Amino acid sequence: MSTHEYFMRLALDEAKKAQDIDEVPVGAVIVKDGIVISKAFNTRETSKDATCHAEITAIKKACKALGGWRLIGCEMYVTLEPCLMCSGAILQSRIEKLYIGTMDPKAGAAGSVLNVFEDYWFHHKCEIKVGILQEECSTILKDFFKRKRYKKD
Amino acid sequence: MSTHEYFMRLALDEAKKAQDIDEVPVGAVIVKDGIVISKAFNTRETSKDATCHAEITAIKKACKALGGWRLIGCEMYVTLEPCLMCSGAILQSRIEKLYIGTMDPKAGAAGSVLNVFEDYWFHHKCEIKVGILQEECSTILKDFFKRKRYKKD
Repeated sequence: MSTHEYFMRLALDEAKKAQDIDEVPVGAVIVKDGIVISKAFNTRETSKDATCHAEITAIKKACKALGGWRLIGCEMYVTLEPCLMCSGAILQSRIEKLYIGTMDPKAGAAGSVLNVFEDYWFHHKCEIKVGILQEECSTILKDFFKRKRYKKD
Repeated sequence: MSTHEYFMRLALDEAKKAQDIDEVPVGAVIVKDGIVISKAFNTRETSKDATCHAEITAIKKACKALGGWRLIGCEMYVTLEPCLMCSGAILQSRIEKLYIGTMDPKAGAAGSVLNVFEDYWFHHKCEIKVGILQEECSTILKDFFKRKRYKKD
């Protein structure tokens, strides 16, 4: 297992925690110098808060852990391509590298609907790499929505 | 004074609170059915948290006030054009109308660097109107950065 796979597996474990409480299963992990400094999962429904995506919560926890808003030298592993809000937060917090599990064709802002990391000039750049444990990151989401549809019928 | 000016003045009062604690002076107010449900100002430095822009804090407070993550029927007044993160949060939270004081040519995502409200198709649409109390919203920022530069010299 590569280092990238190791950290993405931790992000997947977070996604499973979201799944367990009936939240869309997305997880994120922030790493600095090979050490995990924060982990989080999506809690939009249970928190009743539109900003509580996995990435935002992970960034808030990482800022707390490092004692400042600049996450210099930090890398994020996230199971699903970030939305616009989370992509913006990644740039705002100065995260340097972003590893994505699977893409989100409907709402992703790192190459799907648009690519804020490559197509625009912002104050900060963040390198992205897509497809770490892609199949598992995609399957957990597909299974979640399949069960949701099944319950509805 | 028009209704829009009235609410933007409240947002400007928030911006002044940011200025008083040496934060970049940006303020935001969320209104539903003519009633203010949340007010906030930028506290990125004092909170040591990259996500603590005025708009994100105002959205979090509004979700709490309404008891859910969907800010249906809500309007935001913000003194400065939102960045990517905040524009994404505005779309995520389903805010229906956005009133902007002044534009941010360097980082704005509502028409400056890009326009996420008009040029892309997301799950939600939000109407925008620019230029409410434009001069005052711009002046408070210009004066802030002028003082900052003066202190440095």
